[in-house]
Amino acid sequence: MSNIIINTKKKNPLIHCITNYVTVNDVANTILAAGGSPIMADDKKEVEEMQSICQALLINIGTLNERTVESMILAGKKANELNHPVILDPVGAGASSFRTETIVKLLKEVKFSVIKGNISEIKTIALGVGKTNGVDASNDDLINFNNIDQVINFSKNLSKKTGAIIVITGKIDIITTEFETKITNNGCENMSRITGTGCMLGGVIASYLASNLESKFEAVVQAVSCMGIAGEFSSIEKGNGSFHIGLINEISKMKDKDYEEFNKVEKR
Amino acid sequence: MSNIIINTKKKNPLIHCITNYVTVNDVANTILAAGGSPIMADDKKEVEEMQSICQALLINIGTLNERTVESMILAGKKANELNHPVILDPVGAGASSFRTETIVKLLKEVKFSVIKGNISEIKTIALGVGKTNGVDASNDDLINFNNIDQVINFSKNLSKKTGAIIVITGKIDIITTEFETKITNNGCENMSRITGTGCMLGGVIASYLASNLESKFEAVVQAVSCMGIAGEFSSIEKGNGSFHIGLINEISKMKDKDYEEFNKVEKR
Amino acid sequence: MSNIIINTKKKNPLIHCITNYVTVNDVANTILAAGGSPIMADDKKEVEEMQSICQALLINIGTLNERTVESMILAGKKANELNHPVILDPVGAGASSFRTETIVKLLKEVKFSVIKGNISEIKTIALGVGKTNGVDASNDDLINFNNIDQVINFSKNLSKKTGAIIVITGKIDIITTEFETKITNNGCENMSRITGTGCMLGGVIASYLASNLESKFEAVVQAVSCMGIAGEFSSIEKGNGSFHIGLINEISKMKDKDYEEFNKVEKR
Repeated sequence: MSNIIINTKKKNPLIHCITNYVTVNDVANTILAAGGSPIMADDKKEVEEMQSICQALLINIGTLNERTVESMILAGKKANELNHPVILDPVGAGASSFRTETIVKLLKEVKFSVIKGNISEIKTIALGVGKTNGVDASNDDLINFNNIDQVINFSKNLSKKTGAIIVITGKIDIITTEFETKITNNGCENMSRITGTGCMLGGVIASYLASNLESKFEAVVQAVSCMGIAGEFSSIEKGNGSFHIGLINEISKMKDKDYEEFNKVEKR
Repeated sequence: MSNIIINTKKKNPLIHCITNYVTVNDVANTILAAGGSPIMADDKKEVEEMQSICQALLINIGTLNERTVESMILAGKKANELNHPVILDPVGAGASSFRTETIVKLLKEVKFSVIKGNISEIKTIALGVGKTNGVDASNDDLINFNNIDQVINFSKNLSKKTGAIIVITGKIDIITTEFETKITNNGCENMSRITGTGCMLGGVIASYLASNLESKFEAVVQAVSCMGIAGEFSSIEKGNGSFHIGLINEISKMKDKDYEEFNKVEKR
Repeated sequence: MSNIIINTKKKNPLIHCITNYVTVNDVANTILAAGGSPIMADDKKEVEEMQSICQALLINIGTLNERTVESMILAGKKANELNHPVILDPVGAGASSFRTETIVKLLKEVKFSVIKGNISEIKTIALGVGKTNGVDASNDDLINFNNIDQVINFSKNLSKKTGAIIVITGKIDIITTEFETKITNNGCENMSRITGTGCMLGGVIASYLASNLESKFEAVVQAVSCMGIAGEFSSIEKGNGSFHIGLINEISKMKDKDYEEFNKVEKR
C-alpha cells in the first residue's frame, strides 16, 4: 500500500486556502476529514505570513473579487519561494472575461503544482476556447471515447507549459503530467447534485499532496479517486442534504485499504 | 397537474445569485435540489457577463455591503435588458437605514419580477413604516384575521407600483399581484428555528419561475407552498441540525404530485 | 437549577455578529439552537444601528480583513455605550501580525465582557508570546498539571487588566475573572475534527450571557460546559459530517437539567 492517506493523517498539514464563500465551510471540513488543518486567510496584510506557517496553498476563484486577486498572487509567490505546493481551482474559467484574465495573470505570476478543473475550465486555460455552463462544464465539451486522446494531448501540453499536474474532473477524471496519464472512473452523478464537490476535491488534493511530496502524482490520483469513492459510498436515498453530509463522513473514514479495494484507476 | 416542478428539473435553469455569506451554501444547494444550477458572482467586473449566460437573477441583501450594491444594480439592469426574471429578497429592510435606502435605490434602478419578504420587510417597502426584529418580523406586524385584508391591500398596491409579484412569508403566506391573491398555509414553526429558510425559498422561487415563464404566478405560489411542505416533511425530532439537512432533502425529492396532494393554497 | 438555558429560550436575545465567512452559518444556527436570534451585519454604514436593536455583540476575527476591522470598532463602541455585552473570539491571534495588531487595537477601543480563545491565542494576548499552529493551539502551549496554575495566573491578570471574563478552551477549559476560576472537563477530541466548534461556542456564550446579565460568570461557565456536553452527546460513528450536524442538534435540545447532570465543572 502507498500510505498516502495514513501519511496525511499523521502529518496533519496546514493548508492555507483563499477560496470562495459558497463552499468554504465544506472545504475546511473536508481538509479536516482528510487529515489536514485549514486556515482561511485572504487579506493582503497577512497572506504571506500565513503561508509561511503552512505547508500548502489552495487557490479557488469561485467567488472572485478584485480584493482577493492581489492576495492570491502574494500568497502564491510566497508559497513558490518556500517550495510549498500550490493548487489552482479555476472555477468558472471561461464564464467571464474577469475570470479568464485572472487565470492568465495567476499563471504568469505563480507556479502551480496542480491545476484542477472541469473540462470546460481546463480547455479555456489550455486552448483559450472552452465553453461553459456557468460553473459547470458545457455539454459540448464533455469527454467521450472519440475525443479523450485529444483531451489528454492538450492536458499534457498544458502540463509541459506550466509544470503542473493537470486534473480534469467529470464522468471520467484525467490526471496527467507531461510524461504520464491516469484516468479514474470513480464517482457518481449525484456528486453534481450538490454544490462544492469540486471545491472539496481541491481540499483533499492539497492535503494528500502536502503530506506526500515524494510521490506527488500518486497523491493527486488517490485524492481524485477517493473523492469519487466517497461519492459512491454516500447515499442519495434520503435526499441531497444527507448525501452532502455523507460525502464528508466518507472522506473522514477513508482508509488506504479502501482506495486499494475500490479505486477504478487505469494507466493510459 | 401543472408540471412546475418537473419543468424545473428538465430545464435546469442557471440562477445568478448575489446573496449573503451566511446562507449562501444553503441557497446554492436548494437551487440544485429544485432542479436549477446556481452561480454566485458578485464582482462588478463580471456580474453583467454572468447574468447574460443565466436565466434569472436572485438579489438577497442579507449581508449587504457597499461593494456589492453596485454589482446588484449592474446585474439587475442587465437582467432587465435580457428579460430575465429578477427576484428581490429584502432581508432586514427597515432594520437599518442603509438597508432601507438600498432597497429604495434598487427599486428605482431595477424592475423586479418578485419581491419576497416577511411582513415587516414588505411593510417597510410598501408603507415605509415596518418595524423589525432584526432579520425577523416584528410581533407588532404579524398577520391575523383582523389585518389580513389590509395587508393584502397594501401588497396589491405595491404590486401595482412595481409590477412585481409580492410574496409575504409568515405563518400564513400571501402571494399577490395587482389582480389576484393566493394564501398558503403550508409550513411549520420549526422553519424559524434554523437560519436561511427565507433565503432558500428565494432560490426555489427563482428556479421554478425561470423554468415556467408562461405561468409565473403559479410558479411562485408553488415555490412558496413547496418550501412549506418540505418543512412539514422534515423532522425536528433529532434537533435543529437534522431538520436543516432534512429541508434540503425534501426539496430535492419534491414532486408535482406532492404539491397536488399537500398544498394548502387558497384563492382570496 | 440556575435556569440559564431556559432564560435564553425565553428572552430570545438578538445577537449581532461580525464574524468569519467560514463558519458563519454554524454560528447563526448555533445561536438559534441556543435560543437567541442572529444578525450578521458588517458594513460600517449599518453596524451601529444594528447593534442598537440587539442585546449583544460577537466579534470573531477568523477571516479578518481591513474593511471589517473598522466595523468591529464602531459596533463595539456602540455596544459599550448601550451597556451590551461584547464577546471577542480572537481566532488566530499570534498567527499573523495583522491579527495580533488588530487585537491590540480592538482591546484599546472596545471594552469586552468575554475574551474566549485557545491557549495560544490567549497567551498571545496576555503575554505577547503565544505560539500558534494556525488557528489551532500550538502543542508547546498545551495546558497540563505542571503549568495550569501559571495559566490561571496570567488569565486572572488579563481579566484584571481588561475587565473581561477570560475563557481558555482546550482539553480542559478555564473560565476566570480576577476573583474566581472554574475549570470544566466536558468535551471530546472529536470537536477538533470539524471546523467551527470554537466559533459556535462564541455564539452560545453570547446567547446565554445576553439572557442572564445578573449571573454573567455562571452563564459563561454553562455555555462552555454545554458546548462540551453537546460534543459528548453527538456521535462520530458515522463520520465527521454527521458529528457536525449532531452538535447543532444537541445544542438545540440542551436543557438546564442536562447541564446539572452532565457538567464536569470544578471550582479552583
